[in-house]
Amino acid sequence: MSTGSVAKKPKLESFQHEGKVDWKKRKAERNEAKKQRKEAKLVKQLEKQKQQEAEANRAKLQSHSHKGRTYTVSVALPGSVLDNAQSAELRTYLAGQIARACAVFCVDEIIVFDEEGEHVTSVEGEYKGVGKRGQACLQLARILQYLECPQYLRKWFFPKHQDLQYAGLLNPLDSPHHMRIDEELEYREGIVLDRPTKPGKGSLVNCGMRKEVQIDKQLQSGLRVTVQLIKTQNKESKRYKGVVVAPHVPRTEGGLYWGYSVRLASCLSDVFTEGPYKDGYDLTIGTSERGNDIDQTPLSPFKHLLVVFGGLQGLEASVDADQKLDVTDPSVLFDLYLNTCPAQGSRTIRTEEAILISMAGLRQKITAAFSAAPSGSLEDL
Amino acid sequence: MSTGSVAKKPKLESFQHEGKVDWKKRKAERNEAKKQRKEAKLVKQLEKQKQQEAEANRAKLQSHSHKGRTYTVSVALPGSVLDNAQSAELRTYLAGQIARACAVFCVDEIIVFDEEGEHVTSVEGEYKGVGKRGQACLQLARILQYLECPQYLRKWFFPKHQDLQYAGLLNPLDSPHHMRIDEELEYREGIVLDRPTKPGKGSLVNCGMRKEVQIDKQLQSGLRVTVQLIKTQNKESKRYKGVVVAPHVPRTEGGLYWGYSVRLASCLSDVFTEGPYKDGYDLTIGTSERGNDIDQTPLSPFKHLLVVFGGLQGLEASVDADQKLDVTDPSVLFDLYLNTCPAQGSRTIRTEEAILISMAGLRQKITAAFSAAPSGSLEDL
Ligand SMILES: C[S@@+](CC[C@H](N)C(=O)[O-])C[C@H]1O[C@@H](n2cnc3c(N)ncnc32)[C@H](O)[C@@H]1O
Ligand SMILES: C[S@@+](CC[C@H](N)C(=O)[O-])C[C@H]1O[C@@H](n2cnc3c(N)ncnc32)[C@H](O)[C@@H]1O
Repeated sequence: MSTGSVAKKPKLESFQHEGKVDWKKRKAERNEAKKQRKEAKLVKQLEKQKQQEAEANRAKLQSHSHKGRTYTVSVALPGSVLDNAQSAELRTYLAGQIARACAVFCVDEIIVFDEEGEHVTSVEGEYKGVGKRGQACLQLARILQYLECPQYLRKWFFPKHQDLQYAGLLNPLDSPHHMRIDEELEYREGIVLDRPTKPGKGSLVNCGMRKEVQIDKQLQSGLRVTVQLIKTQNKESKRYKGVVVAPHVPRTEGGLYWGYSVRLASCLSDVFTEGPYKDGYDLTIGTSERGNDIDQTPLSPFKHLLVVFGGLQGLEASVDADQKLDVTDPSVLFDLYLNTCPAQGSRTIRTEEAILISMAGLRQKITAAFSAAPSGSLEDL
Repeated sequence: MSTGSVAKKPKLESFQHEGKVDWKKRKAERNEAKKQRKEAKLVKQLEKQKQQEAEANRAKLQSHSHKGRTYTVSVALPGSVLDNAQSAELRTYLAGQIARACAVFCVDEIIVFDEEGEHVTSVEGEYKGVGKRGQACLQLARILQYLECPQYLRKWFFPKHQDLQYAGLLNPLDSPHHMRIDEELEYREGIVLDRPTKPGKGSLVNCGMRKEVQIDKQLQSGLRVTVQLIKTQNKESKRYKGVVVAPHVPRTEGGLYWGYSVRLASCLSDVFTEGPYKDGYDLTIGTSERGNDIDQTPLSPFKHLLVVFGGLQGLEASVDADQKLDVTDPSVLFDLYLNTCPAQGSRTIRTEEAILISMAGLRQKITAAFSAAPSGSLEDL
């Protein structure tokens, strides 16, 4: 891996077209070239295969030697962003873009807040029609949850619902906890089955594997659980064996990205006050083209980062709509208020674009903050 | 602008719900609070207005005092990316995402290359049907060009075409050269009109303003031109006055982002060899999850940067499909081969996402490279 400045590599050969030629000779040359290309392709394919195997092994090793990640990253945005979409299909697609942007940057929590007085705090409730204004928070939250859920669990947790009518258009998250049937990893998401087990034995869990997993506890059927599979399984056994762990364990112990939780907030201020962490978020960042230049702003290590995005009218509109807030300038709500795309070439950046852009800028600063920090100083979760 | 480490600002007041209360007193308090809120809103609005005016002025000043930008940025990607879309609408939308990603990061040239042997090098040619496989390069190029063209010029340059059937779904680029009728800026894009003018006088140009612009030269009607308006216009005159300049002038002299040109390449290697710059690209970057860590790779100043993205199968597939290339490993084609999203939380990043992510990472490094460089050292265009 080069860490120096731009190093020049040999450039492409010249691709000049030939002038007049001896056609017979040329044909012979061509055939020879063709043969060589064929051989080269074969060699290439073999090389590639070897390389892929080596890489797969390396990746496995890395994921094992990787220390856990102690911090969390949360992203908040108004559900109203869906109302900018021009069709029911694009509305769904936009929700999917947001889910993917968050997954790519290992976001642990997504908070959908209401900036229009919808006042919904649960994904339950009666359905009012696809594509209608309003219900945007609900629909966004539902699609985010749907995409986060491993495919093999969806039939249980997501019965047919019109918010999910165009779910077929969604690009999968393809995150580490979305496992194929034969993939091997220490952890798996599963659902507790409604199946009698002998007294003293734990419940059976469907983890999307060829056999069911017998866990260490009796749990209520229908629960979604994170299972840690024991290292040495008896290959002959009818079942795999595992123990139930807290959902943060794959991250805190395995260093794996394990999807996000979704939270609804009835206004911007609830984003801050109703979080799942005992002491709240210890670093909060608001985003705006009127913020300070991200390039001039280093980050310090944190436990729980919150990054907040505005909708069509920016965070000013979210503040305006919040009855609990008496401030007018969003920047006072945050530890940092950042312009993450200085010198932008478009008058406005859309929220779904801003998530990718901002998280790309912050990723680099987070990495720097934590690699400079003394290790072990942030073990509190 | 804070340049220090995370500085804590005062946090939100407490939002605890009240317990038992004296309802009469509470109502009076509420009314008072309501009145105060109303007043606050008014003050807020005034403040905002003032602030916006100040900002508009500042922006104007900046755009004038801004030195020109001497370097260019080109982005290349395979047209085949469109074939991943699941409907004709989403195919169009995807092309729009690419256009916007490039505009946001002030990309000057987009090269659409063929990795499937389509062999098209012009946007002319017979139309074969929306959404069909193949024709992807052509359709992507056409939509990119359509979006780049200022709205007021589209009726001339983009007659109805089925590639543009869903153009209504596209989000506008909203870049500086897409001007509203009364917007004031030194430069404008226009079309030379087919209108007789007196000998010795220049052609008339429609620049999307309330009056036509008389330029300094006689040019063929139908040409798209970049016009520099003279500073002091005679308000009474029937026409504005301007001179024709090269399309790079708004960038090189005004420091403005002025849209991108679009180029078709019949294979990956043509991306490198057929560029518009005399000495070619002097910094080329390939992108891949198998590239070197972007965080470890500083950039040096350059004249013409080229950043290349792969499609569904990565740049390996683009190299494989290129008959002119005998290499198998894409990394040897580039000065730098970069992983722009280390520790990604999804197994694959889509090309349209990778453009935003990679350009966000590179933007910061480009800024650093050029702010460290001695000024005036790169005045050669
Ligand atoms: C469509 S933009 C809001 C535009 C709105 N007119 C304004 O002036 O804020 C939606 C959101 O994208 C994010 N955003 C847009 N540009 C940004 C930038 N340069 N830096 C950081 N965030 C940005 C912000 O969260 C913003 O609220
Ligand atoms: C769908 S990806 C290609 C995935 C393909 N399976 C591979 O292994 O390369 C499409 C393109 O996005 C870009 N891309 C994806 N992940 C990237 C990363 N981590 N860093 C830089 N570019 C990336 C590359 O240009 C890639 O060719």
